[in-house]
Amino acid sequence: MHYNLALIGFGNVARSLAKLLIRKRDLLKAKHDVTFSFTGISTGRHGFAVNPNGLDIEKALELVESGKDIFPLSTFNVQDSLSVIQHSQANIMFENSPVNTQTGQPALDHIRAALNLGMHAITANKGPVVHGYRELTKLAESKGKKFRFESTVLGGAPTFSVMREAFPLAELESFKGIFNATTNIILSRMENEESYEEAVKYCQSIGVAETDPTNDVDGWDAAIKVCALVTVLWDTSLTPQEIKPIGIRGITPEMIAKAKSENKRYKLVCSAEKVNGKIIASVSPQLVDSTSPLFGMMNSSTGVTFRTDVILDYSIALSEKPGLQGGPVETAYGLFADFVNIVKQ
Amino acid sequence: MHYNLALIGFGNVARSLAKLLIRKRDLLKAKHDVTFSFTGISTGRHGFAVNPNGLDIEKALELVESGKDIFPLSTFNVQDSLSVIQHSQANIMFENSPVNTQTGQPALDHIRAALNLGMHAITANKGPVVHGYRELTKLAESKGKKFRFESTVLGGAPTFSVMREAFPLAELESFKGIFNATTNIILSRMENEESYEEAVKYCQSIGVAETDPTNDVDGWDAAIKVCALVTVLWDTSLTPQEIKPIGIRGITPEMIAKAKSENKRYKLVCSAEKVNGKIIASVSPQLVDSTSPLFGMMNSSTGVTFRTDVILDYSIALSEKPGLQGGPVETAYGLFADFVNIVKQ
Repeated sequence: MHYNLALIGFGNVARSLAKLLIRKRDLLKAKHDVTFSFTGISTGRHGFAVNPNGLDIEKALELVESGKDIFPLSTFNVQDSLSVIQHSQANIMFENSPVNTQTGQPALDHIRAALNLGMHAITANKGPVVHGYRELTKLAESKGKKFRFESTVLGGAPTFSVMREAFPLAELESFKGIFNATTNIILSRMENEESYEEAVKYCQSIGVAETDPTNDVDGWDAAIKVCALVTVLWDTSLTPQEIKPIGIRGITPEMIAKAKSENKRYKLVCSAEKVNGKIIASVSPQLVDSTSPLFGMMNSSTGVTFRTDVILDYSIALSEKPGLQGGPVETAYGLFADFVNIVKQ
Repeated sequence: MHYNLALIGFGNVARSLAKLLIRKRDLLKAKHDVTFSFTGISTGRHGFAVNPNGLDIEKALELVESGKDIFPLSTFNVQDSLSVIQHSQANIMFENSPVNTQTGQPALDHIRAALNLGMHAITANKGPVVHGYRELTKLAESKGKKFRFESTVLGGAPTFSVMREAFPLAELESFKGIFNATTNIILSRMENEESYEEAVKYCQSIGVAETDPTNDVDGWDAAIKVCALVTVLWDTSLTPQEIKPIGIRGITPEMIAKAKSENKRYKLVCSAEKVNGKIIASVSPQLVDSTSPLFGMMNSSTGVTFRTDVILDYSIALSEKPGLQGGPVETAYGLFADFVNIVKQ
C-alpha cells in the first residue's frame, strides 16, 4: 500500500517526523509493505507546497532549514493550510501547526477538513483532543478512518496506545502523574538551592520555558494534558478552567528545604479519579515521599500511574536524558507510531 | 462470535482467570460481541472434565475449592491433559499447569497439541516461551492462530503487548529491570535491619517464597524472565544457564547499611543489551542511586526500563500493594488481556 502524506505545520516536530519517516522507510516497506510520499506541506513562515505526485522532501527540509520558501516545489498555487489539505490528495494528514489551546483552532478545522476528505488525521496538538475528541472520533468512524494523538501527553512516550491496546476491558479508576517538564525542572533545581527566578531563567535558556512562563508555572499546560486524558480515557469532556490548576509560584525555598529534610519533595501532581461516575481532577503542588512512583522523576522526567479494576498502580515513565528527552524526536515518534499503527491494520 | 475455552491447569491463576471471565462476560458481549463457554478443564489433583456443550464453571470452581473432583461434570471419560485438549473442541487453550522450567514441559506439548488442533494458545508459563517461542510462533502462524504469554514477566502487567503495539518499528537497544519480587522483598526488609534469614522466612510465610528459596534467591527466576524477554523481543534464543545469574546470598547487612548511608540500595538488577548484534545479559545485585527508575521499586514492586532508538528510557512499573499485587488476579488479567486482544481482531 502507498500512502500520500500531508504535513500541516512544518516546525521542529514535523521536520523530525519527516526525517524519522525517511530513516524508517526501508523497515516500513520490509515489515508492512507500506510506502509513502509527501504530497502537501504547510509551513508557518516558509510558504506552502502541493504536488500529488510527491514533493522532494529532502529539498523541502533543506529550504526551510536555510530559511527559504518551499513554494518552488509546488505544482499548485496554494496559499493556506486548508488548500494544501484539499489539493494534496493525501491519505494521512499530520496536524502540527501552532494551536490556540483555548479553542483548539486552527487544528480543529484542519482535522475536520482532512477527515471529511477521507484522510486519517494524526496530531501532537492537545487542543483538538480537548475541544473535539468526541466529534472528531465520530467523524473519523463515519468515514472509516482514524483520529490519533499519541504524542499529546507524555511527549511521544506511548500512553494512549498502552491503555487502548494493553488494557483491554479494564476500567480506569484513577491516574496520577507529572505531565509538565518545565515545572519539574524548576522544582528539581530549587532542591539544589537555586532560586525560583534562576530556575525559570535556566528553563528559558534551554528552550523549554517561554518568555512568559505562565502557561507552565501556573499549571495550565499540565491541566490541558489532564483534560486530554480524561476526555479520551473516560470519554468525558473536561476543560482546564474546570480543573482550576494551582501552579508552583507559591512554593518557597523554605518549603523545599523542609521537605528535603524529611526526605520528601514537592511535585506538580496531576490527578483524576472517577467517583460514582463523576470525574474529580486536580493539578497542584503536593509533597510526595520515596514510596511514590513520582518521587524519582527528576528534572525533565515525566510519567503517570494508572489504577484500574484489574491491575493496581501500573506506572509509565519517560526518564530524563539531558538534551535528549521530551524533544522533537520523541514527539515525532509518537506521530510515527500512530501512522504505523493505522497503516499496518 | 462464540469461543470454547479449555483450561489446562486449574490452580490459583486459572481459577482467578475463570472468575475474571465471568465478571467481564457482559462487557465482552457488549463491546466485542464475544461469548464463551468452558469446554475442558484439567486439574492437578481434582481430575479432568470435558463437555463440548459447555461445563458448569461455577460448579467446577466450587468443587475444586472444596477439595472435590470435577469428573462428575464431564461427558467424556478423560484421564489426562492431552485428552482434555483433544476432546474439548476448544477455540482457545489456556496453559497454566505446573511446568519444568528446565525443559518447558509439559506446557510445550500441551501448546503444540492445541495449536495443531487449530486453537489459539495462551500461557502464563515462562518455560514454553524460553524453550519454544520460535517453534510455537511459527506453528501458530501456519495455522492462522496466536501464541500469547503476556503474564510471564511482570506478573500480568502489560509488557509484551506494550512493546508489540505501542513501539511499532522501534529498535530495542537494551532493557534493565527488577523481575523477582521475593528478592526485592528480602532486600527491602534487610534495609529495615531484618536479617536475610528472617526476610526469607517472611517471604515463605506470605507464600511468595518456596520452602527451598534457591530459585528466587540465586537469581534463576529472574534469569528465566530475562530469557523470555530476550527470546521474544530480539527473537534470539537464550537460556538461564548462559546468563549465569548471581543471586543475593552474598549481600551482607554491612553492605546494605553502607549503601543506605550513601543513599543507595542494592537491587537484583536484570539487564540485557544488544551490542553489534550480540546479546549481553546479566542478573546480579547492583547498587542503584535515586536517579535510577529502579531505586523506588520497593518490596514486591517490579518493573523494567526499555531503551530504544526512538524513545530513550521508557519505564513500566507495577507498584507494590500489600496483599494485592503480583498475585493471581493480576496474572489472570494478563491471560484475559491476551484473550481479548485475540478475539477482538
